[in-house]
Amino acid sequence: ADVKKIAVIAGDGIGPEVVGEAIKVMKKTEELFGFQFEFEQGLFGGIAIDEKGTPLPQETLDICKNADAVLLGAVGGPKWDNNPKELRPETGLLGIRKALGLFSNIRPANVFDCLMEASTLKPEVLAGTDLIVVRELTGGIYFGEKFRREGANGQEAVDTCVYNEAEVERIVRQGFEIARTRRKKLASVDKANVLETSRLWREVVNRIAPEYPDVELEHVLVDNCAMQLLRRPASFDVIVTENMFGDIISDEAAMLTGSIGMLSSASLGEGSFGLYEPVHGSAPDIAGQGISNPIATILSVALMYRLTFGYAEAAQCIEDAVKSVLDAGHRTGDIAVDKSKAIGTTEMGDLIIAAM
Amino acid sequence: ADVKKIAVIAGDGIGPEVVGEAIKVMKKTEELFGFQFEFEQGLFGGIAIDEKGTPLPQETLDICKNADAVLLGAVGGPKWDNNPKELRPETGLLGIRKALGLFSNIRPANVFDCLMEASTLKPEVLAGTDLIVVRELTGGIYFGEKFRREGANGQEAVDTCVYNEAEVERIVRQGFEIARTRRKKLASVDKANVLETSRLWREVVNRIAPEYPDVELEHVLVDNCAMQLLRRPASFDVIVTENMFGDIISDEAAMLTGSIGMLSSASLGEGSFGLYEPVHGSAPDIAGQGISNPIATILSVALMYRLTFGYAEAAQCIEDAVKSVLDAGHRTGDIAVDKSKAIGTTEMGDLIIAAM
Ligand SMILES: CC(C)[C@H](C(=O)O)[C@@H](O)C(=O)O
Ligand SMILES: CC(C)[C@H](C(=O)O)[C@@H](O)C(=O)O
Repeated sequence: ADVKKIAVIAGDGIGPEVVGEAIKVMKKTEELFGFQFEFEQGLFGGIAIDEKGTPLPQETLDICKNADAVLLGAVGGPKWDNNPKELRPETGLLGIRKALGLFSNIRPANVFDCLMEASTLKPEVLAGTDLIVVRELTGGIYFGEKFRREGANGQEAVDTCVYNEAEVERIVRQGFEIARTRRKKLASVDKANVLETSRLWREVVNRIAPEYPDVELEHVLVDNCAMQLLRRPASFDVIVTENMFGDIISDEAAMLTGSIGMLSSASLGEGSFGLYEPVHGSAPDIAGQGISNPIATILSVALMYRLTFGYAEAAQCIEDAVKSVLDAGHRTGDIAVDKSKAIGTTEMGDLIIAAM
Repeated sequence: ADVKKIAVIAGDGIGPEVVGEAIKVMKKTEELFGFQFEFEQGLFGGIAIDEKGTPLPQETLDICKNADAVLLGAVGGPKWDNNPKELRPETGLLGIRKALGLFSNIRPANVFDCLMEASTLKPEVLAGTDLIVVRELTGGIYFGEKFRREGANGQEAVDTCVYNEAEVERIVRQGFEIARTRRKKLASVDKANVLETSRLWREVVNRIAPEYPDVELEHVLVDNCAMQLLRRPASFDVIVTENMFGDIISDEAAMLTGSIGMLSSASLGEGSFGLYEPVHGSAPDIAGQGISNPIATILSVALMYRLTFGYAEAAQCIEDAVKSVLDAGHRTGDIAVDKSKAIGTTEMGDLIIAAM
């Protein structure tokens, strides 16, 4: 049989709890669809710092490289926040993206009708919002040279933002390709009126655009995008942008849906390999209490099934199960209006499995 | 008498219309408060490109340098969007900031109760929102070295983000000082988990903080800030941040108030000199029709009175007049619910003057 290898890096905080439920869901699909998975756990993030002295141990990287897909929980927490750079969980996150060549981060931000009230936006503005942010993930100011030097006015810090044509082209093409499978609208976000990297970005977008005549293209300045997301979120289909802007814009988009506990993400490279994780963080404040929401991680599995394995039917089955459990009124604390009726992490996972 | 010199750079699009109303208001305060102003007009932005071949003619810069304050309308438009860098209105904007040493951009984002419905946020979330973004304006990636080079993967573009301690310190101090005059809360926004400039930024903030024990400080990562602004806008008092983050965050904050046609801004350097302008742009689509909203520019005059001239009473008089006109139900098209009842630019200006 075709055994798929899954690297599981649960990470910190609520990471292990939510990943646990996602694995239960994957096992359920083994039963229902005859899939076969082999799970291998790796230490990553804060826990890896504590146990191995580095956020991304070589062993974990090897497990990932040897796998067909990676399921990631979440990393980080106050315990490691004041560590020097090489001993910080985020450094592991940047390292794994680079080491695995995951240049493309796909973050759907869509509204769950039954959770519309959870958003701080007016329902009539939010209605129909269903967008995807395609974020460049291994270039730009995150990975450019950084250093300190002594200057005339005290210490001076420098970050360098670099993009080459090939890097821009591959992520922009991905934006166009994804738009093609959807409502055929692409918003390319840059700051071309100020930045040289953005001017290169825009040139590449304009050069490639004629190959996608079926996709309607708009250029949006990043500051304007931050505004338009608030004003007309439903009008966006696919947004493609560079690393730093994507970080900010995708978080804004996620929050405005009101469904941050529900949003999944994929980080992809060349080929079908991918790393899948919830958009939310490690939530150290509620870790270990069994009250976290596993849905974003469970939906990350659905994304993995679609994008890495082509298991469309099983993906749909998971998504439908989530929807039916929500429609039946079940809520974890983060999305419950009446907190006293909130259910726990395991209960939510079990209900979804039962609905599959 | 103490004659104050005002450099007036009306700019493009609706710039001249809205500046015209603001000057009417200033003249009214000459009558009411015995002030004396001397206005000198300068070409700036697109119109300066057309007439002088550069967005910031030396003559205009001299007028500004010779003035006590600058009143700016708005610059830019599609006509100049594809020009080479040195012939773009934005280049003039960056140039004037640098040449006048305007390192601090102050952008209040507050909610006008009578316009609450204009926001896309739920009124109960928005209620009480009254924040100021203090943005560093002459450093960072906007002004660092930028260039192209040939690389192995085609052209490569580079932007450099540089900050030194002195630059960070003066803007951060301004943030603390402003917070002190308000609700005494400062949110410092950075990306210290990734960027070296942000780590320097945070170090400086933490070094200075003990001098302001009365101000409650929080560090917020920029991606998280983009989210928290949506989730709890009313909880922010003063936000201090670097140039690029300030561009994005201040626009998001402005839009969420629903009052973008109403928001003013100040750009300050050392001393009392300042440049005052509305937050909104040149709106070329409605320019020349006499339907633009002059309130943001008129409120920029109030800001000028407070921050540059110490004319607190007159500033209050202008702000009260604006409020009473709005409370009486008068609206320009951009903020009118019933567009058929919208009034024009001049009419709005006249009503405000009558109410003063
Ligand atoms: C933790 C941090 C380095 C990371 C990023 O900025 O990329 C996170 O915010 C994200 O978006 O995945
Ligand atoms: C036009 C542009 C250069 C400018 C900026 O980004 O600073 C504008 O967006 C602003 O915020 O004043």
